[in-house]
Amino acid sequence: MRNSSPMRSNRIEAFSDGVIAILITIMVLELRPPEGVSIGSIHELGPNLGAYALSFVLIGIYWNNHHHLFQAVERVDGAVLWANMALLFSLSLVAVVTAWFGEHHGEPGPSFWYAVVQLMCGASYFLLTKALLRLHENDSVLVTALQGNVKERISLGAYVAGAVIAPFAPWVTMGLIAAVAVMWLVPDRRVARLIES
Amino acid sequence: MRNSSPMRSNRIEAFSDGVIAILITIMVLELRPPEGVSIGSIHELGPNLGAYALSFVLIGIYWNNHHHLFQAVERVDGAVLWANMALLFSLSLVAVVTAWFGEHHGEPGPSFWYAVVQLMCGASYFLLTKALLRLHENDSVLVTALQGNVKERISLGAYVAGAVIAPFAPWVTMGLIAAVAVMWLVPDRRVARLIES
Amino acid sequence: MRNSSPMRSNRIEAFSDGVIAILITIMVLELRPPEGVSIGSIHELGPNLGAYALSFVLIGIYWNNHHHLFQAVERVDGAVLWANMALLFSLSLVAVVTAWFGEHHGEPGPSFWYAVVQLMCGASYFLLTKALLRLHENDSVLVTALQGNVKERISLGAYVAGAVIAPFAPWVTMGLIAAVAVMWLVPDRRVARLIES
Amino acid sequence: MRNSSPMRSNRIEAFSDGVIAILITIMVLELRPPEGVSIGSIHELGPNLGAYALSFVLIGIYWNNHHHLFQAVERVDGAVLWANMALLFSLSLVAVVTAWFGEHHGEPGPSFWYAVVQLMCGASYFLLTKALLRLHENDSVLVTALQGNVKERISLGAYVAGAVIAPFAPWVTMGLIAAVAVMWLVPDRRVARLIES
Repeated sequence: MRNSSPMRSNRIEAFSDGVIAILITIMVLELRPPEGVSIGSIHELGPNLGAYALSFVLIGIYWNNHHHLFQAVERVDGAVLWANMALLFSLSLVAVVTAWFGEHHGEPGPSFWYAVVQLMCGASYFLLTKALLRLHENDSVLVTALQGNVKERISLGAYVAGAVIAPFAPWVTMGLIAAVAVMWLVPDRRVARLIES
Repeated sequence: MRNSSPMRSNRIEAFSDGVIAILITIMVLELRPPEGVSIGSIHELGPNLGAYALSFVLIGIYWNNHHHLFQAVERVDGAVLWANMALLFSLSLVAVVTAWFGEHHGEPGPSFWYAVVQLMCGASYFLLTKALLRLHENDSVLVTALQGNVKERISLGAYVAGAVIAPFAPWVTMGLIAAVAVMWLVPDRRVARLIES
Repeated sequence: MRNSSPMRSNRIEAFSDGVIAILITIMVLELRPPEGVSIGSIHELGPNLGAYALSFVLIGIYWNNHHHLFQAVERVDGAVLWANMALLFSLSLVAVVTAWFGEHHGEPGPSFWYAVVQLMCGASYFLLTKALLRLHENDSVLVTALQGNVKERISLGAYVAGAVIAPFAPWVTMGLIAAVAVMWLVPDRRVARLIES
Repeated sequence: MRNSSPMRSNRIEAFSDGVIAILITIMVLELRPPEGVSIGSIHELGPNLGAYALSFVLIGIYWNNHHHLFQAVERVDGAVLWANMALLFSLSLVAVVTAWFGEHHGEPGPSFWYAVVQLMCGASYFLLTKALLRLHENDSVLVTALQGNVKERISLGAYVAGAVIAPFAPWVTMGLIAAVAVMWLVPDRRVARLIES
């Protein structure tokens, strides 16, 4: 039950799963039921529901990639723990910007900060992989798997572009972020492929 | 601790457990305590409490079936993960329609969308089983267990009928959905029976 | 990883842990910070904080006993699952009556229903043990451990008495329930003792 | 799966992880999105966001230390369980004082009670380690690891000082608590170091 490695990764996985499960779920509390009582009243939910769905998918992608990443992790340390905490903190802010966007869609502020929060998530995920790489041998599954990270670079680029565009065309920002989500919907096969071979 | 299969299913189970546990629980936050202070004031909770209990049972049924299903699962892939995410997303919307129904019971809108959300849950669970079937051998426990799905078909039929009836008789819709819940309260013994034999 | 028993108990434990963890925690959301800004303003929290602390301890006792009970469980079935769901549902209502009592303390309604909800929790825990007993041999650890249940009977009696007294003396009701909590703070050693010997 | 020790520690870890994951997350629900719609409107979040970040880090530190502590734990008993519950209860109050501080920053009341709640957390963590020490042999990893607890003493001292200073200089109180957080950001290597050697 207890191993003698400096730190086990399973409780970090369990804690991250817990936090991500809560974050992905509590956003639904912001989805207030419509005031109306007819079938058509559902349109009141429109942009709120859209923002919730987009945030659900984005957080789902992080869970998915986190899941794949930790399958190849052999050890963790304090730096990994705090990079992971930074990721969870950034993900928690998604709930705030989603609620803001749901209330004031099509405005520069919510779109700009939505993109910035995505940038924070991407940056802390990047720091997490860096902290893990330092702990693993050059020939480990993790190091080989993380070589080349085209999707990560495209994502960060799209978030920066989205933030820059937000003051002029808030909906383009949201479209860019949605496009990144679609790109990621194909899960990260790099780690899986290597473990198999 | 680490196996070499392409993807482990235990973290999906843990994550789904977390999300479902939260969904089944946060609905209680919508149950505002009565304004009155006498023992009889509890009647203010009436339809809210009924809607909460029905949603609790319906989500409990999904957890139960999910639990049984994954006992027979040997491997998962990206399609399974995203079908599972679609199920969790649909389940999260149960909280919204429950709150709507609690506030405006007996109206067509909440009943119609309550049935539609149940239909979404049923459909994504169906997709989840399809995605799992593709990954398992014809003679696996999972494939044999999932043959014949009379209850699933009855449920989906009842949800469609419920949605159609909602504009005319919202309470009949809720009655139909409650009847489906009762039918499912007997847990899915198909998988358990086969594992035993 | 997969065993061939009809149903594993570990996912029920994990799911129950998740639901109980959420229930014990979300009650804190009802604890609105004081309006005032001085150190003495904390007294505004008074009865709310007391009700929260009592409910926290009561739910903590159920988790504790649940934890001990399931250490002796060898198998579960559908009846156990649904008795467990009934327990989780009853525990979720603790949040509602706690909020009601916090807003209208010293009134008959909240105290009466607080006692009734405790009675529901106690009754469903009792049903859970009955459902488990049916599944275990007469000489199993579980059956031996559950013989004699003086504390359970005292608790149920106190809850009934509390409900009866509530219309006349609401604070006596709460005192009785608090006394039950104190009695249970000593965890259930019966199971632990037997496993040891 | 079942061992014969009086009580297993893994379910306590899982339950604590669940509660801490929820606590660290639900605080984000208090972070209401800004009223404004411009990019600069984010300044409305200012002190709220600061209080949330500080509380996130403080709770993260407890999770971190709890994680390390339980890696060396061999057995638990009722006293450990209830000391752990006291810790979780104290941590849950962090959400309340954080919301209070977010609404009325720079006032004596919120700062004073923020420090007091930190003191409660520190004190219950101290009780938890004492309850664990009683259960472990003098030559166990746990006992050796917990010798010397300079950081704990500095923290408790800073919290007492913070509470005393709060009526006169609320911001100094918050600065002291933030300084404690920075000191702890380096995770507790004592246990890890000993397990390794």
